[in-house]
Amino acid sequence: MSSGKILVAQGGGPTAVINQSLVGVALEARRFQQVQHIYGAMHGVRGIVNEEFLDLTQETSHNLELVASTPSSALGSTRDKPDVPYCKEIFKVLRAHQIGHFFYIGGNDSSDTVRIVSEEAHKAGYPLRAIHIPKTIDNDLVGNDHTPGFPSAARFVAQAFAGANLDNAALPGVYVGVVMGRHAGFLTAASALGKKFPDDGPHLIYLPERTFVLEKFLADVKATYERYGRCVIAVSEGIHDASGQPIAALLAKDLEHDAHGNVQLSGNGALADLLCEEIKAKLQIKRVRGDTFGYLQRSFIGCVSDVDQREAREVGEKAVQFAMWGTTDGSVAIKRTGFYSVDYELLPLDAVAGKTRVMEDEFIDAAGTGVTDAFRMYLRPLLGSGMPDAFRLRNNRVPKVLG
Amino acid sequence: MSSGKILVAQGGGPTAVINQSLVGVALEARRFQQVQHIYGAMHGVRGIVNEEFLDLTQETSHNLELVASTPSSALGSTRDKPDVPYCKEIFKVLRAHQIGHFFYIGGNDSSDTVRIVSEEAHKAGYPLRAIHIPKTIDNDLVGNDHTPGFPSAARFVAQAFAGANLDNAALPGVYVGVVMGRHAGFLTAASALGKKFPDDGPHLIYLPERTFVLEKFLADVKATYERYGRCVIAVSEGIHDASGQPIAALLAKDLEHDAHGNVQLSGNGALADLLCEEIKAKLQIKRVRGDTFGYLQRSFIGCVSDVDQREAREVGEKAVQFAMWGTTDGSVAIKRTGFYSVDYELLPLDAVAGKTRVMEDEFIDAAGTGVTDAFRMYLRPLLGSGMPDAFRLRNNRVPKVLG
Repeated sequence: MSSGKILVAQGGGPTAVINQSLVGVALEARRFQQVQHIYGAMHGVRGIVNEEFLDLTQETSHNLELVASTPSSALGSTRDKPDVPYCKEIFKVLRAHQIGHFFYIGGNDSSDTVRIVSEEAHKAGYPLRAIHIPKTIDNDLVGNDHTPGFPSAARFVAQAFAGANLDNAALPGVYVGVVMGRHAGFLTAASALGKKFPDDGPHLIYLPERTFVLEKFLADVKATYERYGRCVIAVSEGIHDASGQPIAALLAKDLEHDAHGNVQLSGNGALADLLCEEIKAKLQIKRVRGDTFGYLQRSFIGCVSDVDQREAREVGEKAVQFAMWGTTDGSVAIKRTGFYSVDYELLPLDAVAGKTRVMEDEFIDAAGTGVTDAFRMYLRPLLGSGMPDAFRLRNNRVPKVLG
Repeated sequence: MSSGKILVAQGGGPTAVINQSLVGVALEARRFQQVQHIYGAMHGVRGIVNEEFLDLTQETSHNLELVASTPSSALGSTRDKPDVPYCKEIFKVLRAHQIGHFFYIGGNDSSDTVRIVSEEAHKAGYPLRAIHIPKTIDNDLVGNDHTPGFPSAARFVAQAFAGANLDNAALPGVYVGVVMGRHAGFLTAASALGKKFPDDGPHLIYLPERTFVLEKFLADVKATYERYGRCVIAVSEGIHDASGQPIAALLAKDLEHDAHGNVQLSGNGALADLLCEEIKAKLQIKRVRGDTFGYLQRSFIGCVSDVDQREAREVGEKAVQFAMWGTTDGSVAIKRTGFYSVDYELLPLDAVAGKTRVMEDEFIDAAGTGVTDAFRMYLRPLLGSGMPDAFRLRNNRVPKVLG
């Protein structure tokens, strides 16, 4: 911890608040006299091995604040998942630039990178302090109550379904919205927070934590449609059958849409379109519409949770404090301490790295197509203040004259 | 105009502000002593022929204000496009309920309905005042500077592209966003308002007002990708070849994805997916992603232009004033009177009904893949206050050590 240089980088999928964490690091580091330079690596670990650094020391605090409230990764990001040789390259550059503190903002893969780099430095006897700062819209980091970035994406999903429900009520039919999250259903489950009245959608929610059975799905949709005259459905992109095979692949085959076998089955509109085709064909419902929320749910500018912004800033600040005052490398984690308040702790890197959290059973209802009140209580405070609300005309019917 | 009963209804696709117009009618009508009852027809013209009316007279002004700020059509909507016999049914119900004033909030089709109902009443010598109130996210009503609903949808599209551009800058590649609008490109063109810095996307915009040529498109994408290392593209769902055939149909054939011939070619993710496949296959670019904005762009709750809200309210209020103090039926239209202010006038129904406005040539750049400053000046004030803004880190590069 003798070095006066710190390096910060951003990895994986951008979020609405990841720059809060970056700026949390940059501004908090200014409080420590021993810090002479704050570097930011461009495009994550790739920028490190390429020695592409921005000198954040020269940034104004004013511009840093503006960047903090801008979504996506201001330093650029990468999908590179470094193995040991890659991490050795990283470590070589860190040593060449005499970096004493390394902060990597990201998800599972990023925490694993920090773990390997930490080990390399240790083996080489190089005094590096390496800290992982949590970030992922999937909310799938273990050891965390939740992860920065998830609340804002969840807010987008909740607002999207609140609106889709109103649209579907005005022009009744079946609506399928496909939400991101391959393994963890938290973001799809957030759709439930768009509900207000008992007959509001989403009426059905399909999560990767539960096996998807097409016949059951069609029966659920039919029953809902018969009950409400309409049906709003939230579907995770990660739904799969009992053997783990993606539903999009199965449906493409089932419908003899061979061409779909040649195209990408995730990250596009195929799943929504195929589910809609199934509903139309098997249930004889005419008005069936599907949307794939795609990149909008993580990149839309102007839909952010203020709680998320604040916490994303704090994990950055705490990372610097843990690095400067602590004696171990680790991963910053959010702990819930009240309804609603949080505190932060530093977990061992191997407690987080490479592990995936999925939705706890207590958050999923018995039918497997909805969430529990425990989940609503869990998520609501994270969405922040100023959530838009929906109101209805009261049902004062006028008597018929003609009959 | 002897009757004390007025009827209001909502038709076509919902918007973020259509309830402002409804409430504008309901509250303004309360100022007129002769108005004894204010009815709202459920699900547009279908609710009229079925005599499904809510008595809005019994609503509280407080709840009406809450409904006004709720998106989608609070009375419900319909896709029914009445012909003359259907309009005769409407007229029969209006007469049975002694409706003296009829207000229909909607687009082209709704204005045509008002026109036919007005004629039927005239022929029958029945004293009906029929007013069309403009609404459409497509902005395709003639005689209007713009239409209520369009500014909020345009704001969503601009914010979506501002975010998609930031995401694409962090993880470079090609991004295709498909926007609603079969015939008029206004909403797709709104993507340009998400740009801030010269190298920001959308770098290319494809509108239904211009013929789409696949080879030209691929050449444009290639050139942009080579220049910026990435490319963000806005595409209207209505793009077509010189013969008017939809591009999605052509691409499905071109790629021998025969299965696509059996599925719906609009209102789903096919166009975005097919364009992405073309780019990957022909330009050998690895990271290519596509989103279809779908229903989110008209139904997302929490993305609204305050200017749009205000004007949507005013067209409702003015409709009542034109009905009560005027002597003719007609369609309320927005006229721009300053930078930025508007006033309202009543156009003859046949000047609006059944006609479609498309983007004026002066709004589209010479290349046909971008908008002019005239368009930016036209649209910017409509988006309202509080538009989110994007900021960047300054480019203070750190010298390389290893090289």
